[in-house]
Amino acid sequence: MATIKDVAKKSGVGLGTVSRVLNGTGSVKPETREKILEVMKELDYTPNEVARNFKKQSTKFIGLIIPSVWHPFYSELAFYIEDESYKNDYKLMLCNSESKKEKEIQYLEMLKRNQVAGIIILSYNNIGKYINPKLRVVTIDRYFSKEVPLVASDNYEGGKIATETLINNGCKYLGYLGGGSTVATDVFKRKEAFIDTAEKNKVKYCILEEVVRFGCEGELAKKFLDKYPEVDGVFTSTDMFAGAFISEARGRGKRIPEDIQVIGYDGIQTNGYFRPILSTIRQPVEEIARSSVEILINQINGVEVPEELVLPVSFRKGETTI
Amino acid sequence: MATIKDVAKKSGVGLGTVSRVLNGTGSVKPETREKILEVMKELDYTPNEVARNFKKQSTKFIGLIIPSVWHPFYSELAFYIEDESYKNDYKLMLCNSESKKEKEIQYLEMLKRNQVAGIIILSYNNIGKYINPKLRVVTIDRYFSKEVPLVASDNYEGGKIATETLINNGCKYLGYLGGGSTVATDVFKRKEAFIDTAEKNKVKYCILEEVVRFGCEGELAKKFLDKYPEVDGVFTSTDMFAGAFISEARGRGKRIPEDIQVIGYDGIQTNGYFRPILSTIRQPVEEIARSSVEILINQINGVEVPEELVLPVSFRKGETTI
Repeated sequence: MATIKDVAKKSGVGLGTVSRVLNGTGSVKPETREKILEVMKELDYTPNEVARNFKKQSTKFIGLIIPSVWHPFYSELAFYIEDESYKNDYKLMLCNSESKKEKEIQYLEMLKRNQVAGIIILSYNNIGKYINPKLRVVTIDRYFSKEVPLVASDNYEGGKIATETLINNGCKYLGYLGGGSTVATDVFKRKEAFIDTAEKNKVKYCILEEVVRFGCEGELAKKFLDKYPEVDGVFTSTDMFAGAFISEARGRGKRIPEDIQVIGYDGIQTNGYFRPILSTIRQPVEEIARSSVEILINQINGVEVPEELVLPVSFRKGETTI
Repeated sequence: MATIKDVAKKSGVGLGTVSRVLNGTGSVKPETREKILEVMKELDYTPNEVARNFKKQSTKFIGLIIPSVWHPFYSELAFYIEDESYKNDYKLMLCNSESKKEKEIQYLEMLKRNQVAGIIILSYNNIGKYINPKLRVVTIDRYFSKEVPLVASDNYEGGKIATETLINNGCKYLGYLGGGSTVATDVFKRKEAFIDTAEKNKVKYCILEEVVRFGCEGELAKKFLDKYPEVDGVFTSTDMFAGAFISEARGRGKRIPEDIQVIGYDGIQTNGYFRPILSTIRQPVEEIARSSVEILINQINGVEVPEELVLPVSFRKGETTI
C-alpha cells in the first residue's frame, strides 16, 4: 500500500505539504494541492486514520447510546445525529442499550477504550457515576450533573399545551398514561405539567405510570382502561402509548375522539399512511439531534457550552382530538 | 492515566501475563487473573484500543451503509446488526447514505481510511467498482460479484406467494406497484415472480414501477390509481407502498379489502397499534441481520463463506386481504 512518503516523493514536495493538504490546514498553493491529490489517486493512497488516531491519541468518533434504534423516535434522532456528525467529519458508533443498565455501562467502557471524542447518551437508568465528565458527554432528556450538558424538548410546556388543549376541547375527566422510570428524567415534566394544569383548571384527573418495555404499552393501556373507564381526555407520555391506548379503547367500543380525546407526545408519524393520525406534541427531533452534536463538538474543541438547552415543542392536530 | 506497565508492576507479574488476561488468550492462574483485574480497577486502567488497532493494523469496527436508519425496515435491520456485532465484540459505525451514490462512495472511502474489519452495505446504486473485494464486504438484497457475499430474503418466492394469494382470493385484475432502481437488485425478483405467476394463471395484470424517494410513495400510488382504477388485487414492493396505496385508494372511495385486496412486502408492523394491519410478505429481518454479520466475521477470520444466502419468507395475513 502507498504511504504518505510515496505521495510526497512522487509529488516532489515535503511530507509537511502533503500533511497540510490532508488536514486542510496551513496554506498550500492551489496547483501544488491539485498535483498532490492527483498523485494520491494515482497511487491509490488512503490516509490511515488508525495511525492518525494513535499518534494524536484522539479519534473522530462519536458514540451514541440509545435504548434502541428500532423505534420510530430514536431512529429519527439517530438519523439526524449521524448526519450532523458526518457533516462535521465525525463518525458515529451506534450502541443499542435496550435500556439495560449493564449494557449502558459496558458501552461506556467500550467507548472509553476506543477513545471516542465524545458521547451522546439517552438513558433512563441510574448510571450517573459512570458518566465521567472527563469523557465529553451530552445527554438527551435526562439531567446528570452540571458538568454534563443536557438537551431536551420543553417537556413541561408540551405537557401544559396537551392538557390545556384537552380542557379547552371540553374534556371533564383527564387521564395521564405513561412509561415510568426508576430515576428522575426530564420526561417527568410532561406529567408534572399535566397535574399542574389539571389542578389549576380544577378538572378531575387520574394517572397511571409504570416502567414498561417498548412494545408492551398495550398491557398498561389495558390496566388503565380497567381502572379508569370513565376518562374522556387522555394525554400519553409517547405516541406509542397513544397508539396502544386508542387500539385498546376502540376494542372496548369507545369512539376516538367522540368518546375519548387523545394526545400523544413525540410526533413519530411522518407520513399519513397509517391511522389514526395522532394529535400530538411534536418534538423538534432534528434540532435536538443537531444541537446535541454541535454542543458535543464545542466541548471537544474546548468551547464553552450551556448546561442545558431546552427546545420548543408544538401541538400537531391529528384525528384524535376534536 | 494508568498504563499496562503500571498494572503489571503493581500486580507483581510480567507484561505478558497482563496481556493474556486482557486478550483472554493463553493460560493464567485464576488467582493471578483475579489479582490483575483488581489492580486494573484500583488504578482505573482502561485498555487503549486505539493503540491496539495501530499495533495490529486492524480494528474491530464494522461499517454499516444503509439508505436511512430512519425507516422502519432499515432500523430493525440496523438494530439486529448492531446487536450481533456487539455480541461478537465488534463495534458498529452507522452510515446513512440516503441512497445517494456520492455519499455511499464517501462512506466507503471513510471506512477504508479507518481500516474497518468489514462492511455491510445495502445499496441500490451503481457502485460495483467501488466495492473492493479486498475490503471484506457483505451485501444485502443486491448482487455485486462472486467475491462479495449476498444475503437476501427469497424475493422470488415472496412475490410468488403474494400473487398466488391474490389469485386464490378471487382477484381478476392484478397490479404491481413498486419503487424502481437504476440497477438490477434482488428486489426485482418480487416483480418477476408477480409477472410469471400472473401469466401462468392467465390473470390480467398491470405494472407501475418508478424510482421514488422514501416518503414519496403516495405520489406513485396516485399515478397508479389514475392509470389503473380497475385493479382488484395489488402487490406492492414494500409495506410503505402498501400503506400509501391504501390511503390513496380509500380517499377515492375504494374499500380495502372488499374492492381491492393489497399485499405488501417487509413486515414492518411489529405492533397492532396503527391501521390497517397489512397483509404482507414478512422478511426474516433478524436472520438477515445476524447472518450478514456472521458471514462478514467468517470472511474476516479467513473462513470460507457462501456466495449467496437466501432466507425464506412467509405470508402474514392482516386486514387488507379477505
